[in-house]
Amino acid sequence: MQKLPGFRDFLPDDCAVRNYIFARWREVARRYGFVEWEGPILEPTELYKKKSGSEIVDQLFNFTDKGEREVAMRPELTPTLARVVAAHEREFKKPLKWFSIGRFFRFEKQQRGRLREHFQLNCDIVGESSVAADAELVALVVDLLRDFALTEEDFVVRLSSRDVWLAFLANKIKAFNEPELRRFFEIVDKIDRQEETKTAELLQPFSTSIDEIRDWVKSTRDFLLNPKTDRSQFEGTTLGKIHELLHDHLGPRHIGPYLDVDFTVVRGLAYYTGIVFEVFDRKKKLRAIAGGGRYDNLIRQLSGGGVSMPALGFAMGDVVIGDLINEVPRARLQMHNETQKDLWIQIYAVIAKEERRPDALAQIQLLRDAGYRVDYPLRPEKVGKQFQTAEQLGATFAVVFGDEWPQLKVKKFSTRQETLIPHDQLLNHLPRPE
Amino acid sequence: MQKLPGFRDFLPDDCAVRNYIFARWREVARRYGFVEWEGPILEPTELYKKKSGSEIVDQLFNFTDKGEREVAMRPELTPTLARVVAAHEREFKKPLKWFSIGRFFRFEKQQRGRLREHFQLNCDIVGESSVAADAELVALVVDLLRDFALTEEDFVVRLSSRDVWLAFLANKIKAFNEPELRRFFEIVDKIDRQEETKTAELLQPFSTSIDEIRDWVKSTRDFLLNPKTDRSQFEGTTLGKIHELLHDHLGPRHIGPYLDVDFTVVRGLAYYTGIVFEVFDRKKKLRAIAGGGRYDNLIRQLSGGGVSMPALGFAMGDVVIGDLINEVPRARLQMHNETQKDLWIQIYAVIAKEERRPDALAQIQLLRDAGYRVDYPLRPEKVGKQFQTAEQLGATFAVVFGDEWPQLKVKKFSTRQETLIPHDQLLNHLPRPE
Repeated sequence: MQKLPGFRDFLPDDCAVRNYIFARWREVARRYGFVEWEGPILEPTELYKKKSGSEIVDQLFNFTDKGEREVAMRPELTPTLARVVAAHEREFKKPLKWFSIGRFFRFEKQQRGRLREHFQLNCDIVGESSVAADAELVALVVDLLRDFALTEEDFVVRLSSRDVWLAFLANKIKAFNEPELRRFFEIVDKIDRQEETKTAELLQPFSTSIDEIRDWVKSTRDFLLNPKTDRSQFEGTTLGKIHELLHDHLGPRHIGPYLDVDFTVVRGLAYYTGIVFEVFDRKKKLRAIAGGGRYDNLIRQLSGGGVSMPALGFAMGDVVIGDLINEVPRARLQMHNETQKDLWIQIYAVIAKEERRPDALAQIQLLRDAGYRVDYPLRPEKVGKQFQTAEQLGATFAVVFGDEWPQLKVKKFSTRQETLIPHDQLLNHLPRPE
Repeated sequence: MQKLPGFRDFLPDDCAVRNYIFARWREVARRYGFVEWEGPILEPTELYKKKSGSEIVDQLFNFTDKGEREVAMRPELTPTLARVVAAHEREFKKPLKWFSIGRFFRFEKQQRGRLREHFQLNCDIVGESSVAADAELVALVVDLLRDFALTEEDFVVRLSSRDVWLAFLANKIKAFNEPELRRFFEIVDKIDRQEETKTAELLQPFSTSIDEIRDWVKSTRDFLLNPKTDRSQFEGTTLGKIHELLHDHLGPRHIGPYLDVDFTVVRGLAYYTGIVFEVFDRKKKLRAIAGGGRYDNLIRQLSGGGVSMPALGFAMGDVVIGDLINEVPRARLQMHNETQKDLWIQIYAVIAKEERRPDALAQIQLLRDAGYRVDYPLRPEKVGKQFQTAEQLGATFAVVFGDEWPQLKVKKFSTRQETLIPHDQLLNHLPRPE
């Protein structure tokens, strides 16, 4: 029998990689004062329709359960966050800084970087509208990637904003509605891929041109990236806020080299209300590594108006980051070293004489109680084969129970050095467990 | 909108408890030389029918996916293990010692200790038929619980065996088939709950009586638990093997006080082929904490005859162990202390003067890079309120950016002691991050 298409088995090597990614995610999110939470994998289908409309249902693993409920395996975490925050918001001091690591599902054609089941880190700040919160989230996404030994040569965070486009359009046409706005963002998204005559035609209702958009994108980027820009004329506007974000809040953290401003990033602009960002590998070989932004209206919308709170967040999947780590030798090496620690034991008890097995078992129990990872042969085996197994399992030491009893022969594999130690002194002679 | 019945939201406190349980599970399984693996949450429904017959489908979250596949959210891990082992067995040295921590689903009425979605630790040894492997698994389940600061006063592992019953019955009736055997196990299971006349009647075809069964259960227990029993007459039999398991393999590990022999444990005997064990709290207030045993035929059966390997394993859910920890003050205290480490930050940066914010941000970045958990106010706030937040977040230190600049005032909350430190010397004055 086969596994389902788009699903993965994590054999021990793969699971160690997954655990390494989770451990880095968890560690860095905590450094930022984020606390972990989690929701169910199954939710009422309605929860997803509420956010994204009924078209999302095409990509859901959804069904009617045995209690006649319409249910769906979660495709994303934000609706659950809104549900949980709406139910519990009074129990917590704001802002909430929450992260979650879990599994998500979507019924899609599988391709590189995109599977039907994947793991995702979600980080959200709820209840804070300041630019400082935007900065905290952008800094976090950068440090999450740096912690994998990735550098500014490997990835870039591209910042954009829905509000800036609104300001741009406000100068062009008097009023525009959501559908028009979506249409406009679709044009911008394809501006470098679609035939120019076609784009020009589509842009007519918006009283602008390809050249004007390109010029504006470039000049706005220059304005925003320059720390010396005089922003007094933009005080209080969205452009002013992004400049403040970049230079007052991110500048002191020295993460400028990881950032770019690119207003052709429009994915999800219909959904977000403020800044948006996407993280890409510099070589642009892979899909987006992470993406997020500010969604100030979503909690109100998803809670049916029950709770209204500003919020922002991002998600990072395990698949693309795994691909990028494998592309970057420095990052791959760090991962390799860390995963070996997960997979390898520390001590192998070699039972050279079968009548020493009870003594070996007693000693193994003591070693494990002290926190060492210990393995031993479950059936009689030749000593040579036992040493071979010890090395295959990555053991640092072999402890031999044989003729030397009541002494033990301790062999350190890295130096091939052998020492005789009284059996009741073994713990004192070993380095502390890792 | 509500969550689905039988599903849980893990708010940060709950998630810290869950992480604590996972961390202990992972740590102890690794001490035993087990490596972690994981499978998909969705599998072909057929995989579960193959093992347990079509009746299992009643308790599945199963459905037809958009690719017309019959799929099910996994109710247990063993069928996936068999699928994975059958596909990859040549890649690994035997025995495999594998563990997995994941989510499982069953459509059942929710009640204490039993939900529709729960987490489970699974530990399995594949490719080893020796009694030593049985012992390794029983010792592991004991140490998993001891690691939660639970003792022999809190829980007991009850050992049983299908083979011993087969031997008992072989003396009573000439031949018996699987359905008869199941019927017999059902009678034994209810022997203390069903009316005696009814039980006596049901036992007639098996040529035995209630008293005979009770006597046999008691005398066999006495025989097995006594280390001095002369087992020579049972050499090679199942009883002999269990005596060897208890005294040669578990005796040296000093875990006798955690064990009992109880052949009225018959749950799942139809499924297992050798020893079976269930772990219960001593007060018998809760459901089984863990259960498992040897299932030598299952991999062959599930792989359609492709691969045949002896195997044994057990599962432990997160719900009942959580309940038991909460019942035992010693265990609850250990959990409390550990979960605080997950939830609390180490340093709070108090921004006493707003113009020091950029300096604070630079310092916060350095502290986080060094591995500290640091938080700070995202908007201007009164100093008193910032100190209050620092204490609520569990901070060990507050670092004040204010009039003292370029010095920092560092306050240690436990001693209320305040020190002035040059801002570029801060890292040298703090204890290492936890």
